[in-house]
Amino acid sequence: MTETDLATLCARLREIGPSTVGGALDALGIDGLVLPPIRPVAADRKFAGPAFTVNVAVGALGTFAPEEFDIPAYVDNAAPGDVIAIDAGGAMVSMMGGAAATAAKLRGVNGIVVHGGVRDLSEIVDSGMDLFVKHAVPVSGRTRVRTAATQVPIRLENVTVNPGDILVGDSTGVVCIPRARLMEVFTRAEKAEAMDQVIFEHVRAGKGIGEAARIAKGG
Amino acid sequence: MTETDLATLCARLREIGPSTVGGALDALGIDGLVLPPIRPVAADRKFAGPAFTVNVAVGALGTFAPEEFDIPAYVDNAAPGDVIAIDAGGAMVSMMGGAAATAAKLRGVNGIVVHGGVRDLSEIVDSGMDLFVKHAVPVSGRTRVRTAATQVPIRLENVTVNPGDILVGDSTGVVCIPRARLMEVFTRAEKAEAMDQVIFEHVRAGKGIGEAARIAKGG
Amino acid sequence: MTETDLATLCARLREIGPSTVGGALDALGIDGLVLPPIRPVAADRKFAGPAFTVNVAVGALGTFAPEEFDIPAYVDNAAPGDVIAIDAGGAMVSMMGGAAATAAKLRGVNGIVVHGGVRDLSEIVDSGMDLFVKHAVPVSGRTRVRTAATQVPIRLENVTVNPGDILVGDSTGVVCIPRARLMEVFTRAEKAEAMDQVIFEHVRAGKGIGEAARIAKGG
Repeated sequence: MTETDLATLCARLREIGPSTVGGALDALGIDGLVLPPIRPVAADRKFAGPAFTVNVAVGALGTFAPEEFDIPAYVDNAAPGDVIAIDAGGAMVSMMGGAAATAAKLRGVNGIVVHGGVRDLSEIVDSGMDLFVKHAVPVSGRTRVRTAATQVPIRLENVTVNPGDILVGDSTGVVCIPRARLMEVFTRAEKAEAMDQVIFEHVRAGKGIGEAARIAKGG
Repeated sequence: MTETDLATLCARLREIGPSTVGGALDALGIDGLVLPPIRPVAADRKFAGPAFTVNVAVGALGTFAPEEFDIPAYVDNAAPGDVIAIDAGGAMVSMMGGAAATAAKLRGVNGIVVHGGVRDLSEIVDSGMDLFVKHAVPVSGRTRVRTAATQVPIRLENVTVNPGDILVGDSTGVVCIPRARLMEVFTRAEKAEAMDQVIFEHVRAGKGIGEAARIAKGG
Repeated sequence: MTETDLATLCARLREIGPSTVGGALDALGIDGLVLPPIRPVAADRKFAGPAFTVNVAVGALGTFAPEEFDIPAYVDNAAPGDVIAIDAGGAMVSMMGGAAATAAKLRGVNGIVVHGGVRDLSEIVDSGMDLFVKHAVPVSGRTRVRTAATQVPIRLENVTVNPGDILVGDSTGVVCIPRARLMEVFTRAEKAEAMDQVIFEHVRAGKGIGEAARIAKGG
């Protein structure tokens, strides 16, 4: 797949969204549904793109040297179109603030998912960045966080994410498509989305949800 | 009570809201205050109406046959004016998506309360449905959920809800009025609401909250 | 410091916000970062001001006499500019409703932080009060709460707050500046804020976050 093809496919997955993609993952027996609560900073945020993964170690204030909290290692190294995915084990510590989120947005990063915290929440909202996070917290990562590794397998809550896996998120939550299964999942999600549209049309025309689903399935 | 009378009474309870109704339940020694966090999908949502109760069993993917997840059993069978109340034991699994919520809205369902999850959150918001839920989650109920029974006693967090009990919700939360106590609770809630209005008037006129309350009580 | 000076300083701290003030507290080794989730009732709320502290005891319905739930003891006694900080140990019980929040707003109270609950959430939002709280809950404090003491040391989650300490909050969270350290913290926060502004300018001009930070530090 060319990079252009991948970008087109991700733009479409962003519209289909994690609810429908999640159904496709289920149908194929793939474990990729991230459990709550990792939420967008505003209700209208959504993303789809290949994961640029980050693993960090977290300790009390003073545990690490300031330079070990290396935000540029992810914000400046992720490629345009990537989704930066940070595994802080759910800690109530900030992995970035408003300036870093703004830099990521201007760089063309498609999304950021943090299994941990961020600060400067209103600046992040204003940046337009499609950022999803477990905690808003006024606790800096400085000397509390060590950027341990990038582009390694990580965990987002209950799901393992490998570099290059496709992450899809909206206000319902986040799902992960293993890269090797992308076309399978995409094809199935498109079919489910088409059926959902037919169901929706019949519902809007006044059918009950049961009858609308039967008609859509041609049953 | 005729159905028209009940609808009028519920329309009024929707305006009075669960905070004031909760005080009336307390005064009468009735246990009906649902504890957080069951939240509306948007801040402006509120409802009051008789409960159409649903009990579901939840398991891992593949536990049940797809047809056992019977959404029409509640969405298509609840009467206009009802509040569908679903007890999934707080599970992080979706009980319905956007098409079902839209069908319920078009059917005239007054509200939906889910002690569990929903998906397609933005579609549900757009549907205008007054839906309250514990989790937004991209995890379908298909093969994970069995619709066990409708119109049986259920639990919403800490509160038992019987079919026909009156559920009242807004952004503060949800309360349950046992059907046999409805007129008692309503009368007391109206009195409390009238007193609250007097307190509010005196507060807006510059009185302290203590003095405003004393004046309202005629003390 | 005169009261006018303190008000000016707090107005500035309100703009600087808890994320940057939190960094200054860290640098000075002061433990004042309140952990989540104590959240504003709307995303645009923020405050800074001296704490008027309140300690309450909480029990089941009927534990206390109604008059022991003494809301005027804090709402009517806090001075204009104060931040009322209520320690209910995180309980799912309301410490006030819409009329009390409106009275506090009209009185000129700068903020309210509740480690516990409130009711009448939409009325509180409409009042314009900068109120932060752990739970929205339709459970009145009447006979469940005893106002135990005002202007004593309290806890907000993990942080001890003394009367007169400066509380600063926005959508990211809440921090506490011990009164004796105020000028130190303020001076350091101003410097950090100035550096953040320089970093932001370079980010907006297209620099990566790493380069922007290096330039701002003159490195």
